[in-house]
Amino acid sequence: MPDPARLHELPTPSLLVERSTFDANVAAMAAARPEAQLRPHVKAFKSTALARELVTAGHTNFCAATVREVEGMAQAGMGTDLLLANQSLDLRRLTPLVEAGHRITVAVDSAETIQAAVAGRIPEVLIDVNVGMPRCGVAPEGAGALADAARAAGLEVRGVMGYEGHLMMASAEKKADAVEASMALLLRAAADVGGDVISAGGTGTYAVNTWATEIQAGSYCLLDTDYAELDSPFEIAITVLATVISVNPDGWAVVDAGLKAFGMDHGNPAWPDGDLFFCSDEHTTLLDPDGRLRVGDRVRLQPGHLDPTVARHEVMWVVDGDAVVDRWAIDLRHW
Amino acid sequence: MPDPARLHELPTPSLLVERSTFDANVAAMAAARPEAQLRPHVKAFKSTALARELVTAGHTNFCAATVREVEGMAQAGMGTDLLLANQSLDLRRLTPLVEAGHRITVAVDSAETIQAAVAGRIPEVLIDVNVGMPRCGVAPEGAGALADAARAAGLEVRGVMGYEGHLMMASAEKKADAVEASMALLLRAAADVGGDVISAGGTGTYAVNTWATEIQAGSYCLLDTDYAELDSPFEIAITVLATVISVNPDGWAVVDAGLKAFGMDHGNPAWPDGDLFFCSDEHTTLLDPDGRLRVGDRVRLQPGHLDPTVARHEVMWVVDGDAVVDRWAIDLRHW
Repeated sequence: MPDPARLHELPTPSLLVERSTFDANVAAMAAARPEAQLRPHVKAFKSTALARELVTAGHTNFCAATVREVEGMAQAGMGTDLLLANQSLDLRRLTPLVEAGHRITVAVDSAETIQAAVAGRIPEVLIDVNVGMPRCGVAPEGAGALADAARAAGLEVRGVMGYEGHLMMASAEKKADAVEASMALLLRAAADVGGDVISAGGTGTYAVNTWATEIQAGSYCLLDTDYAELDSPFEIAITVLATVISVNPDGWAVVDAGLKAFGMDHGNPAWPDGDLFFCSDEHTTLLDPDGRLRVGDRVRLQPGHLDPTVARHEVMWVVDGDAVVDRWAIDLRHW
Repeated sequence: MPDPARLHELPTPSLLVERSTFDANVAAMAAARPEAQLRPHVKAFKSTALARELVTAGHTNFCAATVREVEGMAQAGMGTDLLLANQSLDLRRLTPLVEAGHRITVAVDSAETIQAAVAGRIPEVLIDVNVGMPRCGVAPEGAGALADAARAAGLEVRGVMGYEGHLMMASAEKKADAVEASMALLLRAAADVGGDVISAGGTGTYAVNTWATEIQAGSYCLLDTDYAELDSPFEIAITVLATVISVNPDGWAVVDAGLKAFGMDHGNPAWPDGDLFFCSDEHTTLLDPDGRLRVGDRVRLQPGHLDPTVARHEVMWVVDGDAVVDRWAIDLRHW
């Protein structure tokens, strides 16, 4: 079956990317953080086809949250400089890729994760530093000793990483100072660790984080309603296309994209043309007090959280108005 | 690569089904609603391998929420009596299966969905009746006329369905009366519609819904923390296996199963051995004030909502203690 050429031919629910908005987002970030100053985070979009667009925009180094994402990027020929920006004890899966010549770096924050890097024959590491979010990362004052331990184990230490994830949605007034304080922790660690990489940041802090040598951002290219609340040059490029399957005269209509088509951890998706009532597994009920919707109408819903929404779908359909112009497989899903 | 034979050989995150708990759940429901008195809902588990277990338990008729689920069940040889318990305008996809001899029935609640059934050459329908939840379904007083319209269009009307989904979590004191009132609406419609099928109910109401000729329940066999709050014979058979990848001396530990491994619309998963702090995309932070957890430890987290959790994974690993005894592909995902 040939790929659909027009929007109305797509089955529903389908994940859509608006080409012009995506291009504008990518261009805005490439202007602010050109080339290796951005290390796009593939966890946001989980697609080697989309990643290739970012290579075209000048970014050849990527980071990832899962072993599967690193594997897929290398297998797709984008193994110039791949960072697993996460801890894993399952790094033997990456050994064949290292041996095939892909440059792979992993984050470590403990003796056990150093040992996992050694066991997986991963030659290079970053010391993951806790910069204020209660998640992974060694305390800044312990980073130097951990780097020594990594070098003693035969690893090359390229520098440090730290994710100020707790500050992504901070208010504009507070963000700059808060990020500076967080990055002071990372710079302290970097001084003890050595190396030339200071990897940090994300879509919510790229504009104010002037201390990182590279920014780990991925959401900026597609966005979501949560990030859209920030003052940024990025706009929502991604929607879920749905079909109205039932209309009730008491003032609601039901579409065939439910919570299984979305990441729901940031709450319901948004319907830009009206109020969304609630989501069920395979339905969303929209409030339609004026009876505008008819069975068969198509609507587009905006996800609250990009990353887990993309991970629910097999493909992104790239559209330009009514034309379906490309098909990006979401090939880096699962683990 | 051969399938893992032991729990510690599984990659993480992995979805686990505890064999003995699953068997007990299936047996309890089969005793309460034997054979065709239960029409298991495949939307809950999206796996033909699991469905085959329910055939063994005596249930040969199934219902589904998506065209994809119906397709997969028929293709797997379980097309004895499949109900698409949902509206769809995309029923031409089912025509080849009808022509191949599978018995497929669809729900209709409008002139447009009747027309879609005709266009898809689906011979049999149920009239979907709104029994109190603001979603699909015709008003009870309109059901008879809709049945007439379906018959005039050449369709066989087998009866009615109605989902009292708003009552699944009602308190035990109120549930029986509320379900009776809801089913009174369905019985009124059934009297006007004719046919011999009255399809309704779910895991939360199967025990009190004595008016339905068949119960549409699926969650009972695996359960989740939400349904576990009800007084029922069912217990949680499903967990997500995760590995501790980072431990912080300030009293928390991080595992490698995050919100992308769960449906989050019912909130966070549960960690039965302690308090869960928060989920990120690929991490969950657990509170560990006594420092019990070590990097490399395995933990099991219980999903808050079964259906969207299963839909995030490729496979369920069936386990019996430390032994991995089976592998059920989640082959009915997506649309």
